[in-house]
Amino acid sequence: MNTFGKKLTLTTFGESHGKALGCILDGIPAGLEIDEEFIQSELDRRKPGKSPLETGRKEDDKVEILSGVFEGLSTGTPISMIIFNTNQKSRDYDSIKDLFRPGHADFTYYHKYGIRDYRGGGRSSARETAARVAGGAIAKLMLKSIGVEIEAGVCEIDGIAGEKIDFTHAKQSKMYALDSNKEQAQEKAILNAKAKHDSVGGVVLTTATGVPVGLGEPLYYKLDAILAEAMMGINAAKAVEIGDGILTTHMKGSQNNDPIRKDGFESNHSGGILGGISNGDTLIVKTHFKPTPSIFQAQDIITTDGDEVVCELKGRHDPCVAIRGTVVCESMMALVLADMTLLNMGKKMEHLESIYKK
Amino acid sequence: MNTFGKKLTLTTFGESHGKALGCILDGIPAGLEIDEEFIQSELDRRKPGKSPLETGRKEDDKVEILSGVFEGLSTGTPISMIIFNTNQKSRDYDSIKDLFRPGHADFTYYHKYGIRDYRGGGRSSARETAARVAGGAIAKLMLKSIGVEIEAGVCEIDGIAGEKIDFTHAKQSKMYALDSNKEQAQEKAILNAKAKHDSVGGVVLTTATGVPVGLGEPLYYKLDAILAEAMMGINAAKAVEIGDGILTTHMKGSQNNDPIRKDGFESNHSGGILGGISNGDTLIVKTHFKPTPSIFQAQDIITTDGDEVVCELKGRHDPCVAIRGTVVCESMMALVLADMTLLNMGKKMEHLESIYKK
Amino acid sequence: MNTFGKKLTLTTFGESHGKALGCILDGIPAGLEIDEEFIQSELDRRKPGKSPLETGRKEDDKVEILSGVFEGLSTGTPISMIIFNTNQKSRDYDSIKDLFRPGHADFTYYHKYGIRDYRGGGRSSARETAARVAGGAIAKLMLKSIGVEIEAGVCEIDGIAGEKIDFTHAKQSKMYALDSNKEQAQEKAILNAKAKHDSVGGVVLTTATGVPVGLGEPLYYKLDAILAEAMMGINAAKAVEIGDGILTTHMKGSQNNDPIRKDGFESNHSGGILGGISNGDTLIVKTHFKPTPSIFQAQDIITTDGDEVVCELKGRHDPCVAIRGTVVCESMMALVLADMTLLNMGKKMEHLESIYKK
Amino acid sequence: MNTFGKKLTLTTFGESHGKALGCILDGIPAGLEIDEEFIQSELDRRKPGKSPLETGRKEDDKVEILSGVFEGLSTGTPISMIIFNTNQKSRDYDSIKDLFRPGHADFTYYHKYGIRDYRGGGRSSARETAARVAGGAIAKLMLKSIGVEIEAGVCEIDGIAGEKIDFTHAKQSKMYALDSNKEQAQEKAILNAKAKHDSVGGVVLTTATGVPVGLGEPLYYKLDAILAEAMMGINAAKAVEIGDGILTTHMKGSQNNDPIRKDGFESNHSGGILGGISNGDTLIVKTHFKPTPSIFQAQDIITTDGDEVVCELKGRHDPCVAIRGTVVCESMMALVLADMTLLNMGKKMEHLESIYKK
Repeated sequence: MNTFGKKLTLTTFGESHGKALGCILDGIPAGLEIDEEFIQSELDRRKPGKSPLETGRKEDDKVEILSGVFEGLSTGTPISMIIFNTNQKSRDYDSIKDLFRPGHADFTYYHKYGIRDYRGGGRSSARETAARVAGGAIAKLMLKSIGVEIEAGVCEIDGIAGEKIDFTHAKQSKMYALDSNKEQAQEKAILNAKAKHDSVGGVVLTTATGVPVGLGEPLYYKLDAILAEAMMGINAAKAVEIGDGILTTHMKGSQNNDPIRKDGFESNHSGGILGGISNGDTLIVKTHFKPTPSIFQAQDIITTDGDEVVCELKGRHDPCVAIRGTVVCESMMALVLADMTLLNMGKKMEHLESIYKK
Repeated sequence: MNTFGKKLTLTTFGESHGKALGCILDGIPAGLEIDEEFIQSELDRRKPGKSPLETGRKEDDKVEILSGVFEGLSTGTPISMIIFNTNQKSRDYDSIKDLFRPGHADFTYYHKYGIRDYRGGGRSSARETAARVAGGAIAKLMLKSIGVEIEAGVCEIDGIAGEKIDFTHAKQSKMYALDSNKEQAQEKAILNAKAKHDSVGGVVLTTATGVPVGLGEPLYYKLDAILAEAMMGINAAKAVEIGDGILTTHMKGSQNNDPIRKDGFESNHSGGILGGISNGDTLIVKTHFKPTPSIFQAQDIITTDGDEVVCELKGRHDPCVAIRGTVVCESMMALVLADMTLLNMGKKMEHLESIYKK
Repeated sequence: MNTFGKKLTLTTFGESHGKALGCILDGIPAGLEIDEEFIQSELDRRKPGKSPLETGRKEDDKVEILSGVFEGLSTGTPISMIIFNTNQKSRDYDSIKDLFRPGHADFTYYHKYGIRDYRGGGRSSARETAARVAGGAIAKLMLKSIGVEIEAGVCEIDGIAGEKIDFTHAKQSKMYALDSNKEQAQEKAILNAKAKHDSVGGVVLTTATGVPVGLGEPLYYKLDAILAEAMMGINAAKAVEIGDGILTTHMKGSQNNDPIRKDGFESNHSGGILGGISNGDTLIVKTHFKPTPSIFQAQDIITTDGDEVVCELKGRHDPCVAIRGTVVCESMMALVLADMTLLNMGKKMEHLESIYKK
Repeated sequence: MNTFGKKLTLTTFGESHGKALGCILDGIPAGLEIDEEFIQSELDRRKPGKSPLETGRKEDDKVEILSGVFEGLSTGTPISMIIFNTNQKSRDYDSIKDLFRPGHADFTYYHKYGIRDYRGGGRSSARETAARVAGGAIAKLMLKSIGVEIEAGVCEIDGIAGEKIDFTHAKQSKMYALDSNKEQAQEKAILNAKAKHDSVGGVVLTTATGVPVGLGEPLYYKLDAILAEAMMGINAAKAVEIGDGILTTHMKGSQNNDPIRKDGFESNHSGGILGGISNGDTLIVKTHFKPTPSIFQAQDIITTDGDEVVCELKGRHDPCVAIRGTVVCESMMALVLADMTLLNMGKKMEHLESIYKK
């Protein structure tokens, strides 16, 4: 239940304020060059404290590979990576030990398991996504070798929607904004909310180009279904759209169908997926993140004993999780596509022949 | 890849115009009363040809149980169900044999597998969802025994959104409309599109009440993630929302958090899920369906040989797949919740004691 | 739990005296010629009543393909096959309805599920293996295309061990005997036991030639481990050996190691597997079957109410299950190897390039 | 492929001479007391260098828990454990870098993956079983809470079979010998072989008492099949027997059937399993280990370039892997039974009621 994927599997462990968190990535083909600097650079993109738009917590998020790599190459055995927690202030959490914070998993973990590690949300903390980013980085390396590139950026903050989709800009924007024209307004919305001890939501657009036709395993491991699972499983995600998504329900069939021509599809309302299988066009997924539940206003809650109290949380939290969520969206898409790439092998008899015939 | 679920698994088979389609439902606890009439009634709700809002194809969709039930009770062994195809007009499809219909899986199946059963879309046809409804019906019976009830209805058609959520009305509406005030306009939109040889999209709201706290298995089998997978995997689905979904990104944290009081949550923006686990409140999921890709206007396509041609499809198709999709949404939610109910057992040591201690 | 395999999966259903039994075989690459006559001929090899060495029950075991095959080729979608039960004499079993037959699954099914289909053992009957043979037949077809051949035969009956391993003889022997010199004695042992209303055990040797180097997925899906699972899961199996098996524990390392030379291994004590991976040599597996538990002598048993009684079973049973078990051993090995063949694809980066590089 | 189990999963990582090895154990119910000293004591039982019967390598095998435990109790989240390698002498292995040692996985890993970590066998080294023992220790703790106890011992070495089964003796024997009368002869056989730079095989008997009736999930996750998989997957295992195993093939049905009486079974030829499900009697499994392939005599081998050479290995190796394998057999049985205990929950409707009915 802590394993994602079928042929390429990522199994993660670790709590927000435990000793370490990490992952085992299993299924990477042998012979892939493992660029450790790239993996670290991906973690650096996700790590907190890079700007006032993020939590003030500082974590180095130094990743170490423990297995599965020999002389710079993957060996086909499980790649384990570990990130030690260094900036834990568990004492911060003593005050919430017996409280169920609204919008958090406190209530549900407590009732499901009868016990919870309350320090920083424990396992339910978004801190775990560092492990996904480590795994996703290696998935990206694998995908790059067959020409697949994944990019993501923030397309909307607090209802302020961007119009331009400019990944070049997003790459150097501190909030991964896709539209430089809207970036300032979006940033202001975040800082305003933060000043009021509140938080805002946002939307992340994730795309993949160079995707081969044929990825996705109908009927119960379709590409769109698994992308939806992957994105909805990220902390704070509340909606996922493929291609034109919700907009398609406002179109007629004659408007929404993508005509097919010799050199490809004339439009891409479908977001690159037909019948749960990639069609070779750009994959397009939107993930909608709710406003961070950790806010610093008075809130009505109950204690673990069932007493009604008003709580005022303290600590350091992202005013908008969509920003750092951008890197996680990329990672999840990379994990999905790498898995699908491997699963698709062997779907035609001619694949068998190309591997096994002498 | 044709199996859904982990502890309760539904494996389906069959093509639109093959001999039969069916499923194996594995994992239902022994001793459940299997009400065959109820299963058939669920298939009847989904079957085509009940109104001009649906395809004119007539299928009896008679379901037969082949195994796993003895003297009216489940035995704990796999329950196999079969539905023979009776109204196949395969000749209808000769004309599309070498064509890739836009918006369909023709193109992707052909390239993934190198071969496709073109008759009615073969495996990619929504006809397969009959098997899901058969499996979902038994999941509903199991869930009912612990007080869970699932309902769904159409909340929007062609951009015309309902305001009321009235499941009692939906149950007797021929288009499963949730808002009787908007039903006529919605129906008109469908019939208008149909008259113009076009199609429309729609949105289905699915809910579950009586759900125990604790369903959902973090971190990679979260309830919301798996519901997203389940719904996005239904033919023509392009977006999934949990609870307030996309709306949450327009709210502040202080508006979106659901305050917790002694007798439950004061609001339900979350849609009954926190941290991927059910919180005891009503589960709320919205599934957005694109307009049916099968339309009867001239469309630009290519043949399997790569030639550009204009095609005009013939045949019988739903002008709006969201309607019959309603029953499928219920079935998928039932399968997810039944699976989660079984998976949650054994998550606390006290569960073990209640089963194994003498 | 009724699904075998990972990338090629066989899911079976059906009880001994239900309407039908069958399977869904999922994962066969598209484009494989499906030779229905071959599948039927495999079922014919397993079907009962071919000689006095087998149960007198007659079952036609006619298999019908319901899906997944189009114009003679696999389409990459699930292949469903069904075998209707035609020679059920359920009344035979009324007398054992409330009894737990020794050596049978009656006791354990009753306590595990609280209910059981007592007619002919229901799901626990070896009749289910017909579905495995149907699936195994298609796996054999797939394996044949890359040069893998599977053979099995009886090497020991009632302690009378053969010395010769002659698959050509076994193919035309009515008891699949590998050693024509011992066949008569072995046959006599079976008929003697049968005359005394008793039964005997036997050992089946299964081999595969032409196996590519590299099949098997360490560390928890090793080829030997999964073959052991596959064989031990056949009804009445009580031991499994790989290569020299038990004999290896009587050897020194210097005797047991297989020296490696340019043109291959000099001996094959290992049975073609090193470190859980095929080494290109002949795979060798022995499966030991206990004597049929259904005997016609007085036996001490209890009823479902816990009363101690003496029972004398009636009916028609194989005096030695190893004989028909031979075909099942072949089928299970075929399913394992076909699965492993598919899983191994993508284990090297060069595999990816050969499939995806344009 | 590096994950064992279905509901309780053990995923391991690490190579013999890498930085560390470890595991993620996922699925342990929340609220189990995690006795770290017990886990360490299990690792101490397996660790090398305790007597001249074992390799002279010294490894502390200090295990550290990184996650999943809070204030001494399991939290229901993944339990990660790590063991750092401290006594690596990688230089020892430079000489075998380009050689395929007979009886080892060198040849198959090289061909499967095209690359291998040759230091001490890398991933294929039995050193990985330390991670299984760590996971198995926690499984034992869980099983203990419902009264299941697992024991193992050496019943045969180099063909010298014990007659007594005395687990009390085995617990304090340095070679885990079950028969004190044969221990001296068995020990001598090992030391003799060692003196001749050779190695011997051995047999381990593993039992479990207090097992509830009903564990095992037919038809493709039967208890005996999965035990066979678990045991055959241990390094150097070549045969597995359940109950009387091979002996049953020399018995008549009338001898082999276990009569059932009010207070249980009158004999236990079956080894506590009927139809793949535990029957409440003692579980009995025998695992046969080949002689250690690492011997110090001249052997014919080839290099990775295909040249035929004679090699004489150096280093430190167990002269008989069955001894330390004893602890691994226990661990694997614990993992299987704990998994089966969890999987069995929810097999009857009354289980659901006992967990969910308010």
